[in-house]
Amino acid sequence: MKVRLLEERIRKDGKILPGDILKIDSFLNHQIDVKLLDSIGEEFHEQFKNCGANKILTIESSGIAIATSASRYFNFIPVVFAKKTVAANMAKGAYEAKEHSYTRNIEYTVQVSREYLGENDKVLILDDFLANGEAMHALIDICDQAGAKVVGCGSVVCKTYQPGEKRIKDMGYDVKVLARVSSMSDDGSIEFE
Amino acid sequence: MKVRLLEERIRKDGKILPGDILKIDSFLNHQIDVKLLDSIGEEFHEQFKNCGANKILTIESSGIAIATSASRYFNFIPVVFAKKTVAANMAKGAYEAKEHSYTRNIEYTVQVSREYLGENDKVLILDDFLANGEAMHALIDICDQAGAKVVGCGSVVCKTYQPGEKRIKDMGYDVKVLARVSSMSDDGSIEFE
Repeated sequence: MKVRLLEERIRKDGKILPGDILKIDSFLNHQIDVKLLDSIGEEFHEQFKNCGANKILTIESSGIAIATSASRYFNFIPVVFAKKTVAANMAKGAYEAKEHSYTRNIEYTVQVSREYLGENDKVLILDDFLANGEAMHALIDICDQAGAKVVGCGSVVCKTYQPGEKRIKDMGYDVKVLARVSSMSDDGSIEFE
Repeated sequence: MKVRLLEERIRKDGKILPGDILKIDSFLNHQIDVKLLDSIGEEFHEQFKNCGANKILTIESSGIAIATSASRYFNFIPVVFAKKTVAANMAKGAYEAKEHSYTRNIEYTVQVSREYLGENDKVLILDDFLANGEAMHALIDICDQAGAKVVGCGSVVCKTYQPGEKRIKDMGYDVKVLARVSSMSDDGSIEFE
């Protein structure tokens, strides 16, 4: 894309909030720069082009734009986005996993309908942030329940000093991250690995 | 796209649930057919190409894929997606409106940060469903608060026997709908206008 462009954008437009929160609302998580989005999709394809995925799995809301952009580079394989609710209100019998959000200090139920994930699926999981790995872990759990094979796990941003990346790698998965944040400080400076 | 293709897909894969609910989860609202998505984006451009929009506004979650797809046909104008929360947890001072969801019988707070919408913006609002017009109305309300001009309102599906379309048109807005559902019955049959 090059990844350097994404890092520059995060450095320029990312906002550090109390509680070690990095907000990239101005170009990805609230307002979306669609050209940048497509270069993210293209880069995920570059990194995972041999993974053999026939489906991309992500989680609402911010993962949706990323996953649909990436799909175009993977010959338009279907995207499934997991739904995230505080209280379950979906079809009975959906695959379910729990996700604890540290940012919001709340536990979500993550759900995917049985119709859209099954044992013939090879799944590329894509998401915006990898910090503690809670969302990624919930999505892997759901693939396990479905008997689907996870062939790759990609994240746009990773805070490498938090346990998520190691946690998912230690489970044996192929994890790729585009922008690797190694430190953030309250004065607004962000360092990358 | 042609619109006929979308109608055929809705007829083939849409599911009618009790309470007059049309689910299009298999190709747009849970699993996404990205080729179909892009033809939807292209069709919105066809219908609104002279509207002069410099920004597309939508609402999470299902509107995000639609809006980012459409943006590509509008020369990559930025997409802003409103956030929907049961309890407010965003930056103070965000634009806010209420939306009553009839499907879930719950009231949401819809929010957009002041940074991403202002009086110089000409906004094309895009969403997946237009039924009672609650979501569309909330997005228009937010544009009004921002002093932004709404230059068009597009919806992928509209249930024409519900008041939403008329409500928004009566407010003076240019409303375009791709698939116009005129009736649905419990045996699964769907009619279009």
